Amino acid sequence: MTTPLILVLDTDPRPRLGRLTGRARVRYADERTLAGALPEADVLLVWDFTSDAVREAWPGDGPRPRWVHTASAGVDRLLCPELAASSTVVTNARGVFELPIAEYVAGLVLAFAKDLPRTLDLQRQHRWRHRESRGLAGSRAVVVGAGPVGREIMRLLHGLGVRVALVGRAARRTIHGIEDLDRLASRADWVIGAAPLTDATRGMFDARFFGLLQPSAHFINVGRGQLTVEDDLAEALRRQWIAGAALDVFQEEPLSPASPLWEVPGLLISPHMSGDTAGWRDRLGEQFVSMYERWAAGEALPNVVDMQRGYVPSPDIAL
Amino acid sequence: MTTPLILVLDTDPRPRLGRLTGRARVRYADERTLAGALPEADVLLVWDFTSDAVREAWPGDGPRPRWVHTASAGVDRLLCPELAASSTVVTNARGVFELPIAEYVAGLVLAFAKDLPRTLDLQRQHRWRHRESRGLAGSRAVVVGAGPVGREIMRLLHGLGVRVALVGRAARRTIHGIEDLDRLASRADWVIGAAPLTDATRGMFDARFFGLLQPSAHFINVGRGQLTVEDDLAEALRRQWIAGAALDVFQEEPLSPASPLWEVPGLLISPHMSGDTAGWRDRLGEQFVSMYERWAAGEALPNVVDMQRGYVPSPDIAL
Repeated sequence: MTTPLILVLDTDPRPRLGRLTGRARVRYADERTLAGALPEADVLLVWDFTSDAVREAWPGDGPRPRWVHTASAGVDRLLCPELAASSTVVTNARGVFELPIAEYVAGLVLAFAKDLPRTLDLQRQHRWRHRESRGLAGSRAVVVGAGPVGREIMRLLHGLGVRVALVGRAARRTIHGIEDLDRLASRADWVIGAAPLTDATRGMFDARFFGLLQPSAHFINVGRGQLTVEDDLAEALRRQWIAGAALDVFQEEPLSPASPLWEVPGLLISPHMSGDTAGWRDRLGEQFVSMYERWAAGEALPNVVDMQRGYVPSPDIAL
Repeated sequence: MTTPLILVLDTDPRPRLGRLTGRARVRYADERTLAGALPEADVLLVWDFTSDAVREAWPGDGPRPRWVHTASAGVDRLLCPELAASSTVVTNARGVFELPIAEYVAGLVLAFAKDLPRTLDLQRQHRWRHRESRGLAGSRAVVVGAGPVGREIMRLLHGLGVRVALVGRAARRTIHGIEDLDRLASRADWVIGAAPLTDATRGMFDARFFGLLQPSAHFINVGRGQLTVEDDLAEALRRQWIAGAALDVFQEEPLSPASPLWEVPGLLISPHMSGDTAGWRDRLGEQFVSMYERWAAGEALPNVVDMQRGYVPSPDIAL
């Protein structure tokens, strides 16, 4: 048996794969060279997870990697009908981003509750302006997306005394089905998007949805930009249908300097960084190396994407 | 027995004392009229807790209220040797501010960990600049002040996975004594001031102290402004001895528009609002009414200040 070939869709800084020396051959490709290199590869590591190149370069029925791993939680940039129909196994980086994203969301919720953006504005003007802030304990959150990210957000907010409802595709145990979303959202203080991007979730946060929310509600999206109809959100904020919002993900990333979103009142914009705490790239590299060792030993891989659903299904654990 | 007279050191909006109609006479005083009214009063409600008037107007050995209640956690503005030596009972508003302040501190800690002030700066410049943020779980905090505010801060940060050490006057059970502070602070990511202002704590956060901290550490003060030597903190931030700080309390409040503190790099300034969530004044009023009912019935009062220590001692509950 020849030493397996790992093809890395590359970006700086490169993954540390030194632990695999002698057990794998490693080649690097970019968006331009990917299609030519794919047929020879046994494994594809999608290290540059911001690229759409895999979908475009996937060889269809031809020779192809038996395993594709993406160093991201979402797999929406990757999946195409040909890949979904193939016998290739696709895995994601479940386990790396959940806690950082949940902390980030808790930080945004507290920043809104405590009126922190306004405090920073007033500081720049040297103005002492006492305001009443909001109590977080006892407030209500709806987290849309019942995967590991949504569950971790629920856990942290629950620890801060927030009453959290988790909404998934289908109702099960303590998870609400999507049919409960409108009712729950209409009485929520915090609505948090943490769903995978699928045909069912694309554009789900639109004018109709924002019209359901309380004027005091805040909306936060850390899932995928395409969950939100950005123009509708901007309009909802301008008309004060809701009190504020934070987006960490956008239809197009990076957001253009000319985008009108930067100036929408009450909208906090961050550059898709919620999951990226110091050392995150190392953790992604270590995760791939561990998974490679299991794969090379013929063991079952964790974090396998359900090609029909478009994400890694979560076990129905008690929450 | 005549109906007791409650004297209120007043500020807008006034407390709602309607529930006491027929059971107490209520008069209002301001800083100018307080001294003249004090000798006739049975109870003094220090509703304007930002005033030093009580200390200045206290009648010494003369006729005086038997009970003084302040609508604040700290009693430092109130206590004078004559009051401390008298038989008058002094109580505070323990129970009202703890959770809001703890939430506020959690919000500041997360804002620093997630680099939120810089995110808002970049947004104003329409700049997309991805950064790595810090993980909160597993980081270390030292909370200085082992009263109910410090304990609530510990509880919330602990729920976010932070390893928290609580430092009080004297070591007991899970609380560290002040002799451990330097050692704990020197390895902390977050140092949080939540101590009462006493002779022992005045100016405790000074150049010597900031010099002990890690360059990556953040300092937060929600106790009393006089705990911090503000010039020393400004210098520590300018020299990057520490990474950032937040002050909600100041030597002089309101902070003058001309104060150099507004512009100190890495310093977040808020206008003494950490404890004031919507409805806080109503909660303070309700608390006083409940305490008055106990006092009028001859029952023991809760929240009694230890005049020698200068705060309400906490029971040594398990933490």
